[in-house]
Amino acid sequence: MQRVAVGLLGLGTVGTGVARLLLDEADRIARRSGRRLDLKWVVVRDLDKPRGVALGSTKVVTDPRRVLEDPEVEVVVETIGGTDPALSLVLDALAAGKDVVTANKALLAEHGTTIFAHARRAGRAVAFEASVGGGIPIIHALGVALAANQVHSLAAIVNGTCNFILTAMTREATPYASALRKAQALGYAEADPTLDVDGTDTAHKLAVLSQLAFEANVTTDQIPREGIDRLHTADIRYAGELGYVVKLLALAKLSEYGLELRVAPTLVKKGTPLADVSGPYNAIRVVGDAVGDTLFYGRGAGMMPTASAVVGDLIDVISGRARVTFRTLDLWSETSPPPKLTPPNRVRSRYYLRFTIADRPGVLAALARVLGAHEISIASVIQHDPGDDAPAGSPVPLVIMTHLAAEASVRAALAEIDGLDVVHAPSVCLGVEE
Amino acid sequence: MQRVAVGLLGLGTVGTGVARLLLDEADRIARRSGRRLDLKWVVVRDLDKPRGVALGSTKVVTDPRRVLEDPEVEVVVETIGGTDPALSLVLDALAAGKDVVTANKALLAEHGTTIFAHARRAGRAVAFEASVGGGIPIIHALGVALAANQVHSLAAIVNGTCNFILTAMTREATPYASALRKAQALGYAEADPTLDVDGTDTAHKLAVLSQLAFEANVTTDQIPREGIDRLHTADIRYAGELGYVVKLLALAKLSEYGLELRVAPTLVKKGTPLADVSGPYNAIRVVGDAVGDTLFYGRGAGMMPTASAVVGDLIDVISGRARVTFRTLDLWSETSPPPKLTPPNRVRSRYYLRFTIADRPGVLAALARVLGAHEISIASVIQHDPGDDAPAGSPVPLVIMTHLAAEASVRAALAEIDGLDVVHAPSVCLGVEE
Repeated sequence: MQRVAVGLLGLGTVGTGVARLLLDEADRIARRSGRRLDLKWVVVRDLDKPRGVALGSTKVVTDPRRVLEDPEVEVVVETIGGTDPALSLVLDALAAGKDVVTANKALLAEHGTTIFAHARRAGRAVAFEASVGGGIPIIHALGVALAANQVHSLAAIVNGTCNFILTAMTREATPYASALRKAQALGYAEADPTLDVDGTDTAHKLAVLSQLAFEANVTTDQIPREGIDRLHTADIRYAGELGYVVKLLALAKLSEYGLELRVAPTLVKKGTPLADVSGPYNAIRVVGDAVGDTLFYGRGAGMMPTASAVVGDLIDVISGRARVTFRTLDLWSETSPPPKLTPPNRVRSRYYLRFTIADRPGVLAALARVLGAHEISIASVIQHDPGDDAPAGSPVPLVIMTHLAAEASVRAALAEIDGLDVVHAPSVCLGVEE
Repeated sequence: MQRVAVGLLGLGTVGTGVARLLLDEADRIARRSGRRLDLKWVVVRDLDKPRGVALGSTKVVTDPRRVLEDPEVEVVVETIGGTDPALSLVLDALAAGKDVVTANKALLAEHGTTIFAHARRAGRAVAFEASVGGGIPIIHALGVALAANQVHSLAAIVNGTCNFILTAMTREATPYASALRKAQALGYAEADPTLDVDGTDTAHKLAVLSQLAFEANVTTDQIPREGIDRLHTADIRYAGELGYVVKLLALAKLSEYGLELRVAPTLVKKGTPLADVSGPYNAIRVVGDAVGDTLFYGRGAGMMPTASAVVGDLIDVISGRARVTFRTLDLWSETSPPPKLTPPNRVRSRYYLRFTIADRPGVLAALARVLGAHEISIASVIQHDPGDDAPAGSPVPLVIMTHLAAEASVRAALAEIDGLDVVHAPSVCLGVEE
């Protein structure tokens, strides 16, 4: 059987998982790819660091040039993460005539056009299944299996850290800060979780998904995003009373007005498949014009789930399939026009609103008047009796769920309402995904 | 752009959907496959029957030889269903050097070995995404995207008719017969629903899935199967009280004892992704050694969802990917050994048991004694007060949920219990999927 030499850049969590699969399951991979894969090189930063894998005859080095300059190496797997030095290493690998497999969504979201231009010039392929949804084969699904469809919309839970934190906040009514500490203690959140909890990581993944689903060359900064870091347990509780759970969603919708993109904590109806995605799991809902509703669910991170996607890509590359996919899907094309994004004044949704108001007669009427004036109609209201032990005149929460309304009108109404002297705190506004 | 001529056999529901996609979305398909697809022939039984698609320049004929003998035709799409004449037409198409796309699970389950042997000899590919799960790309997932994994288990809801009926029986407490009539009225069940409701269709699909997930050459008759046609609403209600819903599952588990296969109405824990798959939707849960838990969800039938899968296969075939997949996955191989199936005495599960017993002291004790003697331990019991209006001494239901137990012991215990004179009707036994 024909052999193929592979070089692995990075031996962190994902890299270690990839090395394990390649070494422990060499026969399986040979049987399913038609070639015997030889993990010839592994590039690490520190040679002395203990490793979670027995590398056998694989050469472990610190200098990536050893791999890039080895003519035998046909495929380079990048599991370093981040953009520096990952970008230059990927470009050099392509220039050296090697195919590239990467799990790096930040790299693709920020430098996809450069990378794919280099790959086309070099006549090589780039595969990136592991960049979104860990082990969930969403890239294959959108790029290959659902290729007969025009995707109409995407709704995705693609950040396990946030989903774990939200699940804890929902089930145990824990405040955000302690739910985050719990996630960190269990290894579901980084020491510095900023890029996860502020929605940046989710936006990177939405940029990658938008390439495949809409052939839209969007950059992360074109995606309006809100994280979960300012979310209150109270809003999760009220959402629950209304029959919803709160999820950090990556949303994309195609309409006559263009492509609408956003990352935000969003109310999802209980009993729907997305609502039941809990803990570290990820799920991507895809609606296509032919296939209708579909959902892809699984572990969105972790050593072996992510390695499953990387090695799946390797099998695709060395079998020859990836080259066909790369050629037919013209992703991150330099010639593709800038995406037509839905103008903010065309965005419509149902909204969850929470106000902190004075507990006096006429206040609800005053708020309802402002909403009405902006043509926002009310679907349901929650205002609980503060109880006798609450000091008289202390502010109370008022929760309103609207019918379908224009986002612009809602923003205008909220600005007006927050100016009323009976309103004691800035209002809270969350979108609703039906 | 290079052109490719395609012939379509059959213009029923699926065939019509395929023709629509190919004609209405020709540009999309050309862009994603790299070749311009020309639907040159459509073969129908009756030329005069009105059609749900405008076929334009496509030649409509009744004689399939017109297609098979046309050297220009590179791919034949079979959407006739059944095995006769589908089998001979598929074999002739392969012999004539054409690739084949089929949605026909019965054909694959019963004649896969013959068809794949012919394809190998002719050097052609067979693609069959639409044979299981309608629009859900489960064949691509198992064959390509999850190729790095050894699948450990599968649990699948792959018959929309049964799932629709079970959902109606659960939500409206309708008895089976009227739920079936409702399904027929809404077009979710055939006039003759036998192959759906008795589990045969689900077993066909499990045979196909077993090829991909376990490289196991199983025939339908090797799969123990029970349908939903003898299921009582009472058992759905009691399952609900215990926190479970009843689904018709196709189950496959790999263990040290071999591959365990079955199709049966099974209790699924509420709040798990499979439990929320309702109405005509399908879902396949796949557990792999690297990826862990995954779930694939979507519409399991219908014109356009199934057409989405067929046209996805066509794109795979004409782009050249399908040939690689066909070559590397050695499916329905003549040389593959007979599958090692788990012997019945090695099958273990939790079981739901319902007895119809005399309402007298000591009866529960008598049953519990028999179960205990067979080393079956009881997890929970439901026995409701029959109420004062029930005639004295009239039989009452007793529901028992067991802990993990050997199926053989359960069968033996039930035979013994059904022989007791305090037992008024044959006991009911359903498996539980955790």
